[in-house]
Amino acid sequence: MDMMTMTQMMGSMPASSMGMDMSAMQECIEACNACSMAATMCADACTGDDMARCSSMCMNMADMADTMMRMMLRPMGHDAAVMMSMMQACVTMCQACMDECARHADMSESCRVCMMACQNMMEACQAMMARMA
Amino acid sequence: MDMMTMTQMMGSMPASSMGMDMSAMQECIEACNACSMAATMCADACTGDDMARCSSMCMNMADMADTMMRMMLRPMGHDAAVMMSMMQACVTMCQACMDECARHADMSESCRVCMMACQNMMEACQAMMARMA
Amino acid sequence: MDMMTMTQMMGSMPASSMGMDMSAMQECIEACNACSMAATMCADACTGDDMARCSSMCMNMADMADTMMRMMLRPMGHDAAVMMSMMQACVTMCQACMDECARHADMSESCRVCMMACQNMMEACQAMMARMA
Amino acid sequence: MDMMTMTQMMGSMPASSMGMDMSAMQECIEACNACSMAATMCADACTGDDMARCSSMCMNMADMADTMMRMMLRPMGHDAAVMMSMMQACVTMCQACMDECARHADMSESCRVCMMACQNMMEACQAMMARMA
Repeated sequence: MDMMTMTQMMGSMPASSMGMDMSAMQECIEACNACSMAATMCADACTGDDMARCSSMCMNMADMADTMMRMMLRPMGHDAAVMMSMMQACVTMCQACMDECARHADMSESCRVCMMACQNMMEACQAMMARMA
Repeated sequence: MDMMTMTQMMGSMPASSMGMDMSAMQECIEACNACSMAATMCADACTGDDMARCSSMCMNMADMADTMMRMMLRPMGHDAAVMMSMMQACVTMCQACMDECARHADMSESCRVCMMACQNMMEACQAMMARMA
Repeated sequence: MDMMTMTQMMGSMPASSMGMDMSAMQECIEACNACSMAATMCADACTGDDMARCSSMCMNMADMADTMMRMMLRPMGHDAAVMMSMMQACVTMCQACMDECARHADMSESCRVCMMACQNMMEACQAMMARMA
Repeated sequence: MDMMTMTQMMGSMPASSMGMDMSAMQECIEACNACSMAATMCADACTGDDMARCSSMCMNMADMADTMMRMMLRPMGHDAAVMMSMMQACVTMCQACMDECARHADMSESCRVCMMACQNMMEACQAMMARMA
């Protein structure tokens, strides 16, 4: 979704019930979305025995990023404690996936892009956590 | 993911094994992604007894759009017959969800945006199917 | 979920709005669930260059089975045309994944189990489609 | 998937790389699976303005339970720190969803079943965390 449309939709969200900085959340949603896509592609591209761990971690990364993104798109069920703990789990996953992809980044374009997407999502989650704290 | 990064990643895909027009597929991936997000938000925003069907259809739409998008991001397992039948299922789902959202579009911003995202995804899937045929 | 609990929950579903044989649907839900799990495990276990296609198809299979199952668990948004087209897409995916897993079934336990789960889901979807027609 | 088939499949998992009690993990997988299904049904059944929060929380619960389950089905990418943090996020989500469903459990069968499924998953995750610590 382009940022303008998302801004439009999020403008209709009951922001008060979220108690959140909407522009920070938009950046985090975008970062999760990009990471979910990059990890899905990387999981598919990682072939060969020595890439099995990378592929599996990317499948986990993609599912967690997708779930995190969806949770931010659902203001009705927003719960600060749940959001913080899922953000923390995502930071841990991003770090692990980023480290694994970094080992193959010089020979695999999908690992290089996924590594950057993980780092970007990790920083966006950390920024959200700092604002929510 | 911004289009430039996706173009970069998809450039490394084994295009020959896909037998597909990459720029058409990028548009379709974007359309599925936007629809998945709009439908996730709409399912959350649809509250009240008379919106129960709309909310439920949007949950189905979001899951199908997400699955369709992921399948296009996985060139290794590409199978033309599978892709065509899933595209057809998505066209049917988009039409049904678009019709339901249209009934509430004048009073619900989330329905209005979701309706447009469904139509856009439907047209993108139909364009892909025409190229694959 | 054990069958007794699911029967209990489904008993409270507005069956008339579904117009469906509930016991047939329960079997189909179970078959999709089992296939989603078997395909998730098989995608993870398929390592090595010659297993890349199998792994990728299993990721697609898992996402489609999961989406199909969720759609059956949501009676509020039930739409016969959508259900039929998604069932058809699943049958096509099951056949393709089953064929691919069959090629490795004698040397890979995960492929052997996934092959059987795909066949079982395919037959359950075909039985549902026959009842809905 | 019936427990016998799952036991069979998990028997072929590289258990040593997991460093985990397989029977405890099977119970946790089953609990996540049941919770994912119950929460999907509850999100669909929760209609009416006063149920919007319950429905939205159940959508989050379903996605998190599904992701947690898939992560346990992927031994290749197992990482203890990631698993622990995701388990902790699930415990937090289970508690919040269980509390919300408890408020409607006497008048809604789907909330009553979902509440029990959340509690069961929470306890299974806590048991896993105790063994992994």
